[in-house]
Amino acid sequence: MTVAVVMGSDSDLPVMRGATEMLERFGVRCITRVVSAHRDPLGMVAFGSTAHEDDIEVIIAGAGGAAHLPGMLASLTTLPVIGVPIGRPRLDGLDSLLSIVQMPEGIPVATVAIDAAANAALLALRILALSRPELRAALAHHRSGLAAGVVDRNRRVQEALNGPS
Amino acid sequence: MTVAVVMGSDSDLPVMRGATEMLERFGVRCITRVVSAHRDPLGMVAFGSTAHEDDIEVIIAGAGGAAHLPGMLASLTTLPVIGVPIGRPRLDGLDSLLSIVQMPEGIPVATVAIDAAANAALLALRILALSRPELRAALAHHRSGLAAGVVDRNRRVQEALNGPS
Amino acid sequence: MTVAVVMGSDSDLPVMRGATEMLERFGVRCITRVVSAHRDPLGMVAFGSTAHEDDIEVIIAGAGGAAHLPGMLASLTTLPVIGVPIGRPRLDGLDSLLSIVQMPEGIPVATVAIDAAANAALLALRILALSRPELRAALAHHRSGLAAGVVDRNRRVQEALNGPS
Amino acid sequence: MTVAVVMGSDSDLPVMRGATEMLERFGVRCITRVVSAHRDPLGMVAFGSTAHEDDIEVIIAGAGGAAHLPGMLASLTTLPVIGVPIGRPRLDGLDSLLSIVQMPEGIPVATVAIDAAANAALLALRILALSRPELRAALAHHRSGLAAGVVDRNRRVQEALNGPS
Amino acid sequence: MTVAVVMGSDSDLPVMRGATEMLERFGVRCITRVVSAHRDPLGMVAFGSTAHEDDIEVIIAGAGGAAHLPGMLASLTTLPVIGVPIGRPRLDGLDSLLSIVQMPEGIPVATVAIDAAANAALLALRILALSRPELRAALAHHRSGLAAGVVDRNRRVQEALNGPS
Amino acid sequence: MTVAVVMGSDSDLPVMRGATEMLERFGVRCITRVVSAHRDPLGMVAFGSTAHEDDIEVIIAGAGGAAHLPGMLASLTTLPVIGVPIGRPRLDGLDSLLSIVQMPEGIPVATVAIDAAANAALLALRILALSRPELRAALAHHRSGLAAGVVDRNRRVQEALNGPS
Amino acid sequence: MTVAVVMGSDSDLPVMRGATEMLERFGVRCITRVVSAHRDPLGMVAFGSTAHEDDIEVIIAGAGGAAHLPGMLASLTTLPVIGVPIGRPRLDGLDSLLSIVQMPEGIPVATVAIDAAANAALLALRILALSRPELRAALAHHRSGLAAGVVDRNRRVQEALNGPS
Amino acid sequence: MTVAVVMGSDSDLPVMRGATEMLERFGVRCITRVVSAHRDPLGMVAFGSTAHEDDIEVIIAGAGGAAHLPGMLASLTTLPVIGVPIGRPRLDGLDSLLSIVQMPEGIPVATVAIDAAANAALLALRILALSRPELRAALAHHRSGLAAGVVDRNRRVQEALNGPS
Repeated sequence: MTVAVVMGSDSDLPVMRGATEMLERFGVRCITRVVSAHRDPLGMVAFGSTAHEDDIEVIIAGAGGAAHLPGMLASLTTLPVIGVPIGRPRLDGLDSLLSIVQMPEGIPVATVAIDAAANAALLALRILALSRPELRAALAHHRSGLAAGVVDRNRRVQEALNGPS
Repeated sequence: MTVAVVMGSDSDLPVMRGATEMLERFGVRCITRVVSAHRDPLGMVAFGSTAHEDDIEVIIAGAGGAAHLPGMLASLTTLPVIGVPIGRPRLDGLDSLLSIVQMPEGIPVATVAIDAAANAALLALRILALSRPELRAALAHHRSGLAAGVVDRNRRVQEALNGPS
Repeated sequence: MTVAVVMGSDSDLPVMRGATEMLERFGVRCITRVVSAHRDPLGMVAFGSTAHEDDIEVIIAGAGGAAHLPGMLASLTTLPVIGVPIGRPRLDGLDSLLSIVQMPEGIPVATVAIDAAANAALLALRILALSRPELRAALAHHRSGLAAGVVDRNRRVQEALNGPS
Repeated sequence: MTVAVVMGSDSDLPVMRGATEMLERFGVRCITRVVSAHRDPLGMVAFGSTAHEDDIEVIIAGAGGAAHLPGMLASLTTLPVIGVPIGRPRLDGLDSLLSIVQMPEGIPVATVAIDAAANAALLALRILALSRPELRAALAHHRSGLAAGVVDRNRRVQEALNGPS
Repeated sequence: MTVAVVMGSDSDLPVMRGATEMLERFGVRCITRVVSAHRDPLGMVAFGSTAHEDDIEVIIAGAGGAAHLPGMLASLTTLPVIGVPIGRPRLDGLDSLLSIVQMPEGIPVATVAIDAAANAALLALRILALSRPELRAALAHHRSGLAAGVVDRNRRVQEALNGPS
Repeated sequence: MTVAVVMGSDSDLPVMRGATEMLERFGVRCITRVVSAHRDPLGMVAFGSTAHEDDIEVIIAGAGGAAHLPGMLASLTTLPVIGVPIGRPRLDGLDSLLSIVQMPEGIPVATVAIDAAANAALLALRILALSRPELRAALAHHRSGLAAGVVDRNRRVQEALNGPS
Repeated sequence: MTVAVVMGSDSDLPVMRGATEMLERFGVRCITRVVSAHRDPLGMVAFGSTAHEDDIEVIIAGAGGAAHLPGMLASLTTLPVIGVPIGRPRLDGLDSLLSIVQMPEGIPVATVAIDAAANAALLALRILALSRPELRAALAHHRSGLAAGVVDRNRRVQEALNGPS
Repeated sequence: MTVAVVMGSDSDLPVMRGATEMLERFGVRCITRVVSAHRDPLGMVAFGSTAHEDDIEVIIAGAGGAAHLPGMLASLTTLPVIGVPIGRPRLDGLDSLLSIVQMPEGIPVATVAIDAAANAALLALRILALSRPELRAALAHHRSGLAAGVVDRNRRVQEALNGPS
């Protein structure tokens, strides 16, 4: 059970680290690699075509601008591919989002929010959990934590408004 | 192994039928239901909270405008939720796309292209195929068919340009 | 007579404080709370379904990104719900605005400008003032103050251009 | 108890009729009038300044393009003003939406979705219902109807998919 | 011969000063004033309705967000009104631009670029110059200066690339 | 006293006729000509450079897409140039609008709404009226007509709602 | 001397025919082929990697939506690649445009306007003409024809306005 | 063999230097010049009309806002013109992009990404390389370098994640 977290450049790591850290938190093995659709298309083809042989079950691919990596990988494998649109200073990631999400019929990319690498990992975990009850339990626990965290957030709001009680 | 295909209104069926038909083609059982975040929030909560009990493994949710259904379902379950932004005459589905994809950290929605219900089904199939070799084989076959279809498309182009050979 | 000011996260407080401060200025009681559509959907359902029992007359809900909170609350109550789209660094709040305002027929959200929490409060006050003459007088006074303030603003412009007279 | 439904031109009536019909359905008196910020600014000032004298409690104002009518009326009265952005063939109503919703601090407009005149009426009804229990009951009944309608919508989907049972 | 430079708030002065300075440079009298469509609509009506009596020939109006000032003034006078969309941190002035430029048939606003107050002044000068040969000569001289300035700009580029010659 | 109405192609005439007809209605002489920045740049330079010699006082230029005609003419003359962004099926004229309005400091174009050729003519008339009292009177009369027309529009609304009285 | 005109699907032919017809008009040999980045990535890699061996000098690639074909081909060859964004009913081709033009440093695509296949051909011709004087002459002649055509367009405008002379 | 790199203002040099440096790296002669469509249209016409006489084979033109320089040059020459949309603080270069790319039929501009001057140079090099085998070899070498650089980027990612090995 491995998730591949790939990105077009090392400059994408500050965003994509959100994915690797979330996977680690759940104890899921992840391999991280620079795979570039444009700088090294043959390397990308090799990676995409053989990903399933390396025990990889889900690919998370982050890319910005004319973001072709997620869609190209999706065309090279039948594994689920999750795309993370990475925002650049110009256009705020709208170009990345449309380049990733607007795939033609036949080849889907599971697109998450701009810069939302952690959510990409959580989506991968939901997928992996389908056949792994212990992971599903961990996700359920994580979701309970989100709900419980609302109490803390609420307390911080009350303190900010009224001072600590 | 069931995929749920839900939509906010019966008026979304012409788009969402693309998902049910693709699932049928692959012989995957699907239940189709109107589930409305806004008209029937408690019904939606009931559906989302118990989906996993009904043998559902993936939820495909289509919605337009302020499209809250996919995100709300994702917050009620740990199953993977695939969102289909449905375009309306105004704004071409840009509102639907942003309302579905821009989810906060913690709760991902796997978003596909505007009106791309068939691709949502294919994404569900990729997910289901992870633990079902025969489905993975069928997907690989489907992908080969896409590549083979390029030959036909090319022939049609040549005929349109040069007349039938 | 209470206005509820709710937000999805304590990180929204810097914006939403604009609402609580304006309500205070008019002496209208307000309760502030973190209510999260995505992290705690059942808590949100509970809040929305019972808001009218707590003497709440208007709900102001702030949210960013795929901003589902205002619309979901509006579907759970018949109280007027005012939505404040909160801008995030990416997309400048356009996603929040469209996610809040583009509600389907049947469930309206009264949407104000991006980050305009103070205006949300003023809108709540206009609503409450319909059956409270003293509040309507206070609002009329506030509006006169805006007009009078134009004189001050104008003087500052003259001084900036010509030096103090 | 009167709601004013105003619009800049008779060409806006096909959209704005959605408001008058919804108000009628709830038995709420409504006056409908052409009030034009640009063609007749003094008439607009007169209308806005005296609206509260005519037993009007809520103003619904529809406008397209550089849609100034809702905001100008809001600056002339302390009544709640609901703005309906009307879409034109060019720009799909995005210009109308931004012109109405992005009001400066001090003067809020309660903005609903593009062309959503019926929702503007429902928002007005929620406001009026605050001091009228029978209207609140009617709204609750309407909301139940929406939820019940989901059953019908679902049946239509099943019939479309499987033929009538 | 006077040009009125008006703005909704003193906070717009840093942008609008571009207009007053350009007018000064050409020796054209200008009056600067805060006129607010939303905070002081009656003051705005008074200003717009009587502008032509004060020897004003052109009105330059700057506004941001739901920018109603230029269009409302244009509806109150037959003088040419030039609108300056002022950018705000959110949406980069796209809302201001659309709110100013998309006027309905009957009432035009001469819109310039976002934040382009100096150009608004130059447009006013072109208008005034139609009946003032000395102003037209000054504008021609200014335009020659722009062309001549290209030589300086080019020299700076050469120096930046090659060092000073 | 002549207004030049120019356009890049005869296909723009259906829109630009709105300008010629409005000028005719006010008895102002207008010359209409195809002037193309891209197909015939030298012809455009010749036209722009000599426009002022032909008794032309205002130039109205309509263009679509990468709409360079208004800005280029403005750089070739000191006459006021009014730009009409012409919408094309793709992008709804947003490209035309931005290409015309976002001029750099030094060379303004007075931009009107997308397809708003009639308003371009009315803006030209406001400019010409500055030194022609009879034209100003005609414009004032036209503006009164707009206000009076509101009565008719209102009557049509009443009849549509209630049937003819 | 060959130009390759490729497209992702035969459904793009109505647009891309504009390129083949323009090339024909100039007597430049062109091969037309369906090459799909997503349906047949290995076929695309084969085409892109060997295009230069087939006497191809310029590649024109049309694609819509998440348009990856032009950028991927550009990464597989050092030939100049011209991208034609093809508009789809949703989003008007804005997604195609951004997906094609926003390429990362290292791999450029020469992007033309949405649906502008004829212009892609003219750009290819300008490139080919650099080393072919007769083609440059033909282009110069074509350009003169555009200028001359302005006379015809102008005559049509005069006739439409005044009737045939 | 010369490439002209032109820009509307010396303030564009920080972006456009990306082009001159890339050309230098490949040993291709480039002349850099300020050419302004709006400040000095006749100078621009002179430059564009005679560019081919100065051994220039490709023109790279950078411009921001209502970016007319690339399109106007393309209309004055039959050389290939590459347009670089330069982003400004407002609108992120979307205005520049649309103003450059959306050219009418007949006059193409080869548009690259916002601020992508280095890519404009690489595109020019691809064009020049068609008749210069040594340049094509250098480009192939550069492309290999990009692929090889992926290894370095990947190593940096591994080190950032795991510390140096």
